[in-house]
Amino acid sequence: MSVPPDTLVPWPHVADLMGGWPDALTVEIYDGTGPAPADVSEVRFYVLPYAKGSATFEPLGRMPKLEAVQSLSAGVDNLLPHVPPGVTLCNGRGLHDASVAEHVLGLILAAQRELPRWARDQDAQRWQPHFTRSLAGSRVLLLGYGSIAVAIEARLLPFETEIRRVASRARPAESVHGVDELPDLLPYADIVVSTLPLTAETTGLLDARLLAALPDDALVVNVGRGGTIDTAALLAETRSGRLRAALDVMDPEPPPAGHPLWSTPNVLITPHVGGGSATFYPRAERLIAEQLRRFAAGEPLLNQVPRPA
Amino acid sequence: MSVPPDTLVPWPHVADLMGGWPDALTVEIYDGTGPAPADVSEVRFYVLPYAKGSATFEPLGRMPKLEAVQSLSAGVDNLLPHVPPGVTLCNGRGLHDASVAEHVLGLILAAQRELPRWARDQDAQRWQPHFTRSLAGSRVLLLGYGSIAVAIEARLLPFETEIRRVASRARPAESVHGVDELPDLLPYADIVVSTLPLTAETTGLLDARLLAALPDDALVVNVGRGGTIDTAALLAETRSGRLRAALDVMDPEPPPAGHPLWSTPNVLITPHVGGGSATFYPRAERLIAEQLRRFAAGEPLLNQVPRPA
Ligand SMILES: NC(=O)c1ccc[n+]([C@@H]2O[C@H](COP(=O)([O-])OP(=O)(O)OC[C@H]3O[C@@H](n4cnc5c(N)ncnc54)[C@H](OP(=O)(O)O)[C@@H]3O)[C@@H](O)[C@H]2O)c1
Ligand SMILES: NC(=O)c1ccc[n+]([C@@H]2O[C@H](COP(=O)([O-])OP(=O)(O)OC[C@H]3O[C@@H](n4cnc5c(N)ncnc54)[C@H](OP(=O)(O)O)[C@@H]3O)[C@@H](O)[C@H]2O)c1
Repeated sequence: MSVPPDTLVPWPHVADLMGGWPDALTVEIYDGTGPAPADVSEVRFYVLPYAKGSATFEPLGRMPKLEAVQSLSAGVDNLLPHVPPGVTLCNGRGLHDASVAEHVLGLILAAQRELPRWARDQDAQRWQPHFTRSLAGSRVLLLGYGSIAVAIEARLLPFETEIRRVASRARPAESVHGVDELPDLLPYADIVVSTLPLTAETTGLLDARLLAALPDDALVVNVGRGGTIDTAALLAETRSGRLRAALDVMDPEPPPAGHPLWSTPNVLITPHVGGGSATFYPRAERLIAEQLRRFAAGEPLLNQVPRPA
Repeated sequence: MSVPPDTLVPWPHVADLMGGWPDALTVEIYDGTGPAPADVSEVRFYVLPYAKGSATFEPLGRMPKLEAVQSLSAGVDNLLPHVPPGVTLCNGRGLHDASVAEHVLGLILAAQRELPRWARDQDAQRWQPHFTRSLAGSRVLLLGYGSIAVAIEARLLPFETEIRRVASRARPAESVHGVDELPDLLPYADIVVSTLPLTAETTGLLDARLLAALPDDALVVNVGRGGTIDTAALLAETRSGRLRAALDVMDPEPPPAGHPLWSTPNVLITPHVGGGSATFYPRAERLIAEQLRRFAAGEPLLNQVPRPA
């Protein structure tokens, strides 16, 4: 490429989905693994490589003609400060729904049916069956009822569960409760699944007082953002054996060596891999293709994140 | 109890469900943990304690008046030889459906989303996220399409899977294929879930030739009976890394110390705990109550196992 591109995308195969790149665009591939292209001065549309760390934010500061940024993450809290004012920011809402939702079911079943225990027993060549909890018959509270939570709910329903929905405010027509009703709802939750985004309102939302409202032995699952739960309060409740937790996101993330998140017996952690499964790529590629088509045609982009002007 | 009972049941709380034991029956509790009652000569109806091992079969030889045996297992292959001819044998068909089905989903998600790996990483305080397989988009073959498989299917459907059904013979109206079609079906299965009972026909059914028909990286899940898969053939395919397996039942069971089932990298084992979860008890108690009511009233029992006269 001898002229600077006006479009950076992470994957070449998007072109196949489009029957070739649109004539109106000069596309360069930047997959986030090597250094970013040296000259990005002409870039108008930047599709961030997925989950390649904040190094991929750096070129944003060298793009004076930037019009739009496409993130492939649903949560753009850490990207937001790097996107210049006036630039359209689009998120990956929907791309991770299936992937995160199946990870949630995996985490819940791992906790209820003690899958990590059986893995450790297998390592030790130990055959010690015993009765476990079940998912059937559990009351599940979905904290956050957006794109991912709807996908979680669809997968939970056939497991004979009773589900309650909570969002930022009540939507009675959809049986969604407001977050202010949490103190009354938590005592009836055997399992809480949080998909809360990190915002000023959600930071530390699940604090010691709300966690104390959960019944004994309840399971707290977090696939939203770690900062929405008071880690110290959660650790106190899990260390005592009163609550259990399964966390794909946590605070701090990753936990430093020796941090009790690693070793508290009733805490199961996975390294933020909810969205990171094979089913993500075809979905992400379809979204990028559609956004490039829209961008080339001057049509409004999908998944725009509302932000102060 | 001064007279020998004519009914042995494992749990006292069944009486609560019935509003007290039926007048027509003298009930004694034998939960399978201590020695069986010394005098069982009057016993006409014996409800075997659940999963307490073959010691609970022993009293069968001392029950000359025995009319019916209720097992709480779905698979009665190892009990059958101990039940005298002419005695009605009832199995626990249906009691384990929800429990086994959710364990199957747990095993599949554990394998696809690498849950044992994250558990081991947590033990080692290692944060090494990477992309995994997904369940979404997988083609699943249900080998055996009975009570448990129907429950598995209901739970799989919302995960965006494509499902094929196989039973002992084709039932086109239900889209069920016959077992003779396996060689044509296996090449299209990313995941095979076997719920086969152990019979003369199913022993060693999944042999080297059929396993070879599976595509690379396919996952074999077994929650039926271990003897339905040729263990040596499965180990050869998993050791080479070509196939993966998640086994709740296996042959030998339990594997002796040092057996390769314990330590082959692509083999995940759980100690026959599919049916053993909290959701089993209320279902089992309801079945026992209904069978006692029928027995006392002289009505035909549910779940009779067809057997040679
Ligand atoms: N673990 C992973 O790998 C992974 C992958 C993708 C995404 N995520 C995380 O998941 C989050 C959710 O994604 P999504 O696509 O489901 O987003 P979404 O569709 O925007 O849904 C977010 C939900 O959270 C609710 N909410 C926001 N603030 C709240 C508050 N103060 N109290 C109660 N509820 C509140 C929203 O309420 P309303 O309905 O009232 O607006 C909405 O129901 C993302 O922000 C991201 O942080 C994690
Ligand atoms: N892991 C555990 O903890 C656990 C717990 C409970 C049960 N189990 C096992 O699960 C088994 C199945 O239980 P279930 O309640 O689902 O039994 P089920 O309702 O009798 O279903 C058995 C299925 O297997 C099929 N089948 C039998 N022989 C076959 C053959 N030769 N080829 C192909 N398919 C064949 C049957 O075909 P048709 O439909 O044509 O008859 C039927 O669809 C039990 O026998 C038991 O061994 C394991």
